[in-house]
Amino acid sequence: MKALVFHGAGKKSWEEKPKPVIQQPTDAVVRITKTTICGTDLHIMKGDVPEVVDGRILGHEGVGVIEELGNSVTNFKKGDRVIISCITSCGKCDYCKKGMYSHCENGGWILGHLIDGTQAEYVRIPHADNSLYHIPDGTDEEALVMLSDILPTGFECGVLNGKVQPGNTVAIVGSGPIGLASLLTAQFYAPAEIIMIDPDDNRLETAKKFGATQVINNSKENAVEKVKQLTNGKGVDTAIEAVGIPATFELCQLLIAPGGTIANIGVHGKSAELHLETLWAHNITITTRLVDTVTTPMLLKTIQSKKLDSKKLITHHVKLSDIINAYETFGNAAREKALKVILTNE
Amino acid sequence: MKALVFHGAGKKSWEEKPKPVIQQPTDAVVRITKTTICGTDLHIMKGDVPEVVDGRILGHEGVGVIEELGNSVTNFKKGDRVIISCITSCGKCDYCKKGMYSHCENGGWILGHLIDGTQAEYVRIPHADNSLYHIPDGTDEEALVMLSDILPTGFECGVLNGKVQPGNTVAIVGSGPIGLASLLTAQFYAPAEIIMIDPDDNRLETAKKFGATQVINNSKENAVEKVKQLTNGKGVDTAIEAVGIPATFELCQLLIAPGGTIANIGVHGKSAELHLETLWAHNITITTRLVDTVTTPMLLKTIQSKKLDSKKLITHHVKLSDIINAYETFGNAAREKALKVILTNE
Amino acid sequence: MKALVFHGAGKKSWEEKPKPVIQQPTDAVVRITKTTICGTDLHIMKGDVPEVVDGRILGHEGVGVIEELGNSVTNFKKGDRVIISCITSCGKCDYCKKGMYSHCENGGWILGHLIDGTQAEYVRIPHADNSLYHIPDGTDEEALVMLSDILPTGFECGVLNGKVQPGNTVAIVGSGPIGLASLLTAQFYAPAEIIMIDPDDNRLETAKKFGATQVINNSKENAVEKVKQLTNGKGVDTAIEAVGIPATFELCQLLIAPGGTIANIGVHGKSAELHLETLWAHNITITTRLVDTVTTPMLLKTIQSKKLDSKKLITHHVKLSDIINAYETFGNAAREKALKVILTNE
Amino acid sequence: MKALVFHGAGKKSWEEKPKPVIQQPTDAVVRITKTTICGTDLHIMKGDVPEVVDGRILGHEGVGVIEELGNSVTNFKKGDRVIISCITSCGKCDYCKKGMYSHCENGGWILGHLIDGTQAEYVRIPHADNSLYHIPDGTDEEALVMLSDILPTGFECGVLNGKVQPGNTVAIVGSGPIGLASLLTAQFYAPAEIIMIDPDDNRLETAKKFGATQVINNSKENAVEKVKQLTNGKGVDTAIEAVGIPATFELCQLLIAPGGTIANIGVHGKSAELHLETLWAHNITITTRLVDTVTTPMLLKTIQSKKLDSKKLITHHVKLSDIINAYETFGNAAREKALKVILTNE
Repeated sequence: MKALVFHGAGKKSWEEKPKPVIQQPTDAVVRITKTTICGTDLHIMKGDVPEVVDGRILGHEGVGVIEELGNSVTNFKKGDRVIISCITSCGKCDYCKKGMYSHCENGGWILGHLIDGTQAEYVRIPHADNSLYHIPDGTDEEALVMLSDILPTGFECGVLNGKVQPGNTVAIVGSGPIGLASLLTAQFYAPAEIIMIDPDDNRLETAKKFGATQVINNSKENAVEKVKQLTNGKGVDTAIEAVGIPATFELCQLLIAPGGTIANIGVHGKSAELHLETLWAHNITITTRLVDTVTTPMLLKTIQSKKLDSKKLITHHVKLSDIINAYETFGNAAREKALKVILTNE
Repeated sequence: MKALVFHGAGKKSWEEKPKPVIQQPTDAVVRITKTTICGTDLHIMKGDVPEVVDGRILGHEGVGVIEELGNSVTNFKKGDRVIISCITSCGKCDYCKKGMYSHCENGGWILGHLIDGTQAEYVRIPHADNSLYHIPDGTDEEALVMLSDILPTGFECGVLNGKVQPGNTVAIVGSGPIGLASLLTAQFYAPAEIIMIDPDDNRLETAKKFGATQVINNSKENAVEKVKQLTNGKGVDTAIEAVGIPATFELCQLLIAPGGTIANIGVHGKSAELHLETLWAHNITITTRLVDTVTTPMLLKTIQSKKLDSKKLITHHVKLSDIINAYETFGNAAREKALKVILTNE
Repeated sequence: MKALVFHGAGKKSWEEKPKPVIQQPTDAVVRITKTTICGTDLHIMKGDVPEVVDGRILGHEGVGVIEELGNSVTNFKKGDRVIISCITSCGKCDYCKKGMYSHCENGGWILGHLIDGTQAEYVRIPHADNSLYHIPDGTDEEALVMLSDILPTGFECGVLNGKVQPGNTVAIVGSGPIGLASLLTAQFYAPAEIIMIDPDDNRLETAKKFGATQVINNSKENAVEKVKQLTNGKGVDTAIEAVGIPATFELCQLLIAPGGTIANIGVHGKSAELHLETLWAHNITITTRLVDTVTTPMLLKTIQSKKLDSKKLITHHVKLSDIINAYETFGNAAREKALKVILTNE
Repeated sequence: MKALVFHGAGKKSWEEKPKPVIQQPTDAVVRITKTTICGTDLHIMKGDVPEVVDGRILGHEGVGVIEELGNSVTNFKKGDRVIISCITSCGKCDYCKKGMYSHCENGGWILGHLIDGTQAEYVRIPHADNSLYHIPDGTDEEALVMLSDILPTGFECGVLNGKVQPGNTVAIVGSGPIGLASLLTAQFYAPAEIIMIDPDDNRLETAKKFGATQVINNSKENAVEKVKQLTNGKGVDTAIEAVGIPATFELCQLLIAPGGTIANIGVHGKSAELHLETLWAHNITITTRLVDTVTTPMLLKTIQSKKLDSKKLITHHVKLSDIINAYETFGNAAREKALKVILTNE
């Protein structure tokens, strides 16, 4: 089969690889029909994720069709159409039993990381019963690719951890795909205001279309001052960090009202300064989270019932065999006005 | 001043009464600008609420303007426009400190019940600081009359107690004003389905316009069978009882899925049968609640930010001096297609 | 092997049965070392549980040693000492993913009910990875037999569902083994008062030794009046029903304070009257629950750390081969002052 | 009357001041019977709290007797014995309605800070109905002085925010009075292990007596390594910071298990480094809180019912008129083995 293979920082190729086979009774082999590229894949390509070895097939998102099954898999049968979760969950370790699949002792984020991933014609999925989800009849497959990672990430790490509530005021720092996924799913809870903060006017324009009630270009305006104006000097109830650098995390600390919650989504490479000298008395909560994908069934229902239009996140369509070009497009997201790129295995 | 006065079951008149005065340092006297009639007022008129004595001015909803203030009221000043809560809260008893204002040891539901109410040109409001809310500039007063009782009742007793969640399935039994208030506020949480059940096609038509995804006329169809069909045989996650008779409460028990919640709003005059012989093992929750109006500030924000269009509940406008006719209209709600009647003190 | 076999209402025998074998890759066969008898087994013997067929081996509690394993079981190896949960959980259906193992689509309560159980020398445990727990070194095996059913039942259905909190007042109606298990585990949360209500003085004496702060013999005293006296007329914050008849459930309704919670544990054969004519306005919560055994790991830690002395519940020791006598003792619990009987497979 | 008066950094005296009088209808004047000194008072004496002006009477803890009352106070009458909360709560601003009394718009921490405090023969208490609590008959007054500040602080900021649960493992960094208050109240929730970390062996000895299951002297041992050993390499479920310097907050980050909570109590003067480069993916929660004293009624019940022996925190007794000496003792806590010093107004 063909697959997108990592060969060290900056090097990748679309090349022939052996088709995966069942290794454990809990495995499935899935023929990929649609996949996509994540910001994390770009980090891997830069060499920022040293656990990814030369020869690894990348990708942790996608939908497909069950091709082969191990003998203890019971939720699926050959030919079933499935959503692949970016998080592999064994369903039987202590963490899985608590719903913290991200820390599964036999899984977690391994696809396109510690084992071969989904940017390929076929992929082996360990612990298939707990790591795949049925595609309901009549649901748009492309909409569901967004369920592999970006929607549960925006929802769990940003919206749920941030305790978004009816009538509340939310600031989302970072209007990239993840920030926008938070923006879309925050609206499940009818907050009064969602303020989107980003230095790129084009992204802010998208945020407005996606439901932001206020946008702030923090390369041109003082975001703290403007948020204080919009909130009678109080700050926001929820601040969602969707960038992953110290400056944006520290901005969240300046935006948050007493009693509020800062929900970090960003993947950070450095520590940040925590201003306990003021925050110690502000009764705030800060959360971090690697997505657990525990809300995938809930999110699937919101897509089926049209409460969530996840296709809005898709800006480009490319053949899977053209994935090298797709990386180019996605890697220049601002210039290409790219959010998510759907790769179809035709 | 003029007021609507109860004179025993079936008897009421619009008559002259003394204008209320400040009795306690925590009181306010409010000039009513708009008020409305509640289903509870009809119960009182039938003689179902024996605590209401001859001579009592009815009414526990409305908006108005501060006319006089006791010397320890600090949240308001003369001339402030205010929303009157149906629940009087002292803010300093054990129940109030827990947010259970309905059981306030110095208040609770007393307006138009144990003390004179709001269907009058003026009303005395005890514990004004905790029982009134400022009307924000630019907000429609009529929309805010719905905040006195019906919206917090539908929201707190039905939606919050019922734990409505994104992607869930909700049944609301009873499509009268309270059921519709639950329907409107349930949508804050993006449930996948809201199934409205009522024997009146006109009310169900209204429910559809208000956002119900399914309606069932239970005088013509078997509601249990139809709900089972709609939910793959499982039943609903939340069943909201918005009628107040044994039959509808018992229907909720047949609709509820394992793990689900039955939230009672209805004012019951009789006991109901609880089918513990099946439900003991179904991991369900049943809640009851007299509204606390603790969510009034939250609901006000959802109205201000256009997440909630509470004016939908208003079907009729009448002068306050024509309140006797308004009772007639509201008392024949089905025939008159009446939900809430706004009474304006001109 | 030998096993206790049900032969229709009133008939059972200790007889030879084939030793169980692995049927599915997720199965384990466990050699029983210690087991016990549950009140539910007595119900089965009376013929109250019609799903139990002639020839069924009874029992759903016990500890043992892994004898054989299916090829997809990974949490255990042959020779491991294990606790058997009364609830079989597949770990991969919708209910299991929510932690509602009681309603597992591939398990739930099946041992000694729909498949052969633990009152035998060997038992087959389906979905072993999720239905067994390791016995930590140095822990008393008899103490752990209480983790199969009675402790999680008292804790989950009574204490957790009842929201027992520091400083609160709790009433437990029924001082049998399950009520006592609630009493023991309620003390995890430091309630101010635990009032035990039962018609048997001996059981109340035991309750006092187990930590009850007040006991009421409701065959001699008016329990409602006495509870009102003890609570300044308010009633209790939590009422736990641990009997399973209409009278005790209705008693709970009379004991509960506004804002309180009635947590039902009892297995009911009949419906009860729910006094909505008063309770509709009391802001109460009623819960039902078949035990999920989702707290088994937590309870195990409390036993290991000596926060819970579960051996208190054991009153008798009998050889497994004498199980017919043990049923006699347990079936006359009041006369024999029996709580739990440990059966040892020697 | 006599009072302890602040005269700038390092200067204080026990001197004559005018007896306070009622200024608002919501005020009470309380004759102090017992008071104490807080670590915060030492900070003020060092000049670390610039809002405290020359001439201010210090102190925010104590019990006493109602001497005078404003005309809108209804919860108390002259002669009532009361506990004074360190947090003044108006009960009617947005923050108070949410139970966030610490941020009361008309109160918060003002006693001995922005208005005159309790280290005096008399004190004026604003918003008396919401800021005082009745002393139940038969309760030890000294035990209740601990309810003014130290117990709710340890409990709310440490134990409740830290989500201590049965069977969990807790580390408390700092074994001073506040850390010990957390230790005492953490035991309400039956955690399996409470590991106390401090550089002073004497304080650790006290912690053992108060219920710590493990103690670590982090001036002699590597606390991170030892905690990892004690927790199978996982870390603790809850880490409570009870010191207030960057090093101890950073230690908490190294102790916390995935999914765990760091609850900050310490009053910090500097920012700390937050290691998002590792913690972003560890699904942790960090909380800060200025005590709300919203749990005072709950804690009072635990003292009355002997679930909490708060007198353990008292090491010294001094006459109020000897308060200058008491400051000396408390200021040399390590040398004097001092926890809380009771000052009695005789």
